[in-house]
Amino acid sequence: MLKPLGDRVVVEVIEQEEKTTSGIVLPDSAKEKPQEGKVVAVGSGRVTDNGEKVALEVKDGDRVIYSKFAGTEVNADGKEYLVLRESDILAVVE
Amino acid sequence: MLKPLGDRVVVEVIEQEEKTTSGIVLPDSAKEKPQEGKVVAVGSGRVTDNGEKVALEVKDGDRVIYSKFAGTEVNADGKEYLVLRESDILAVVE
Amino acid sequence: MLKPLGDRVVVEVIEQEEKTTSGIVLPDSAKEKPQEGKVVAVGSGRVTDNGEKVALEVKDGDRVIYSKFAGTEVNADGKEYLVLRESDILAVVE
Amino acid sequence: MLKPLGDRVVVEVIEQEEKTTSGIVLPDSAKEKPQEGKVVAVGSGRVTDNGEKVALEVKDGDRVIYSKFAGTEVNADGKEYLVLRESDILAVVE
Amino acid sequence: MLKPLGDRVVVEVIEQEEKTTSGIVLPDSAKEKPQEGKVVAVGSGRVTDNGEKVALEVKDGDRVIYSKFAGTEVNADGKEYLVLRESDILAVVE
Amino acid sequence: MLKPLGDRVVVEVIEQEEKTTSGIVLPDSAKEKPQEGKVVAVGSGRVTDNGEKVALEVKDGDRVIYSKFAGTEVNADGKEYLVLRESDILAVVE
Amino acid sequence: MLKPLGDRVVVEVIEQEEKTTSGIVLPDSAKEKPQEGKVVAVGSGRVTDNGEKVALEVKDGDRVIYSKFAGTEVNADGKEYLVLRESDILAVVE
Repeated sequence: MLKPLGDRVVVEVIEQEEKTTSGIVLPDSAKEKPQEGKVVAVGSGRVTDNGEKVALEVKDGDRVIYSKFAGTEVNADGKEYLVLRESDILAVVE
Repeated sequence: MLKPLGDRVVVEVIEQEEKTTSGIVLPDSAKEKPQEGKVVAVGSGRVTDNGEKVALEVKDGDRVIYSKFAGTEVNADGKEYLVLRESDILAVVE
Repeated sequence: MLKPLGDRVVVEVIEQEEKTTSGIVLPDSAKEKPQEGKVVAVGSGRVTDNGEKVALEVKDGDRVIYSKFAGTEVNADGKEYLVLRESDILAVVE
Repeated sequence: MLKPLGDRVVVEVIEQEEKTTSGIVLPDSAKEKPQEGKVVAVGSGRVTDNGEKVALEVKDGDRVIYSKFAGTEVNADGKEYLVLRESDILAVVE
Repeated sequence: MLKPLGDRVVVEVIEQEEKTTSGIVLPDSAKEKPQEGKVVAVGSGRVTDNGEKVALEVKDGDRVIYSKFAGTEVNADGKEYLVLRESDILAVVE
Repeated sequence: MLKPLGDRVVVEVIEQEEKTTSGIVLPDSAKEKPQEGKVVAVGSGRVTDNGEKVALEVKDGDRVIYSKFAGTEVNADGKEYLVLRESDILAVVE
Repeated sequence: MLKPLGDRVVVEVIEQEEKTTSGIVLPDSAKEKPQEGKVVAVGSGRVTDNGEKVALEVKDGDRVIYSKFAGTEVNADGKEYLVLRESDILAVVE
């Protein structure tokens, strides 16, 4: 299993087909297109300049929308994951 | 529904036709043109370097003017939304 | 009416003709030329990294000099406005 | 009269001829050449990230050396002024 | 032995062959590919702007995923090491 | 006399000939070459984001090594001076 | 002797021949290659935004690995020195 550091999050990529079931359709335009995924692991948080640790807002199991070009791909145990910074996550799908 | 993270805001885009009813007309010039929208969801706020959370100034239902090139388009439940940072919002229309 | 966010200010643009009456003449040179306007609305202030809100120095009715290339044009109720950050304002004309 | 904002300063430009009387001669080289002026108005100071206001070091009447390419020209009441940030001022001539 | 400074970490590079045994397979795509390694030494931590020292999250012996293009190669005692900043480490493999 | 502002320092340039007497010889290579000078005036210090003033480390009379391309030349009373930020000074020659 | 300012360090460059004796061999690749040296003088430390002085981690006599392209060469008393910021030092060789 992957344990992300700091303000990083591991996201399981959700395939395009699944996306329509959640009601989120990504428009076909010239703008940057977000992508949907499921959070599978979160880091322990970002440390501010004050030395305080700020916990992440997202948690395991959250469905999230993130910028398509963000993060680094990792393939573990046959699944495709993305390691993102929390700041690359736009919104949680509720 | 989309719940934006941090200092992000979800805005429902207001079509060009609607805009004249609110009295806001966007000029036809070489300058960057702002766009109008309605806030439908706000994040829990930005965390400062001191570890304090600063709540957003805008709230659900606010009509806002934002920079045209800001944010990321998301299409959920057949409506076009924009996920913006609050700092991309110029002003609230009152 | 427009209510600007944070450290933003809404300025009513003053036409070139009016400018001579206030005694401010903008030179014809290669340098960046400032422009004159009247403040019609101010934001509630900038939030520092400490989480403190710093009120703006300018107030409604102030005649101000600002950088010509700053801000975003908005046309509301038939008048031309500019939404600027306070830091784009150089000086108040007293 | 112009009242500069924040850490800005209004400087009356001193002509090249006057400069020799103060004993400051600007060298003829490839390096950036400073310019001399007289402070006629100072802002109320810069606000730090702590929310504290830091008063300016220069005051009305100071003769100052500043970077030639700094600031914005304003022509008020027939005189040429420059609105500078204090950080563009190199030294006070005493 | 190498003792890294501040928030730096010395990582022993794990060869491509070993990688399949840990179940981490790096995908063959246009995205930035991470690399796997074993932490052999960690710095004493980063000093925040408050003057506080923040200890590192990783420790000796951790298997880590890091960005392929990060760090500086050093070859000591016949082994290939990489000196990285902790912020270049994406996740710990558990 | 010139009184530098903030963290600035006025340095009297030491000619190439003098340099050999102090034992400092500047190498003839592709790297940036430092230059030697004598501090003749120091600013009152830099103000941190906390609003605290931090006094300079160098003082009048110090012989210093500084980056050749740093600072602004000023010629006062027939002597060539350089106004530098303290951060452009590499070391004091003791 | 040279006394470096702030977070700077004076390093005596160790020739390529000596390097093999310490067991550190620098690889022949396209990556940035570090260089080895001996610390001969350290500054009094960096001042944080809080006004606190943070002492350096390295001390006189430490053998250090630093980035090849960092720092400024100074030749004093016939020896070649490098003035570096501590942040350019990767690790201490123990």
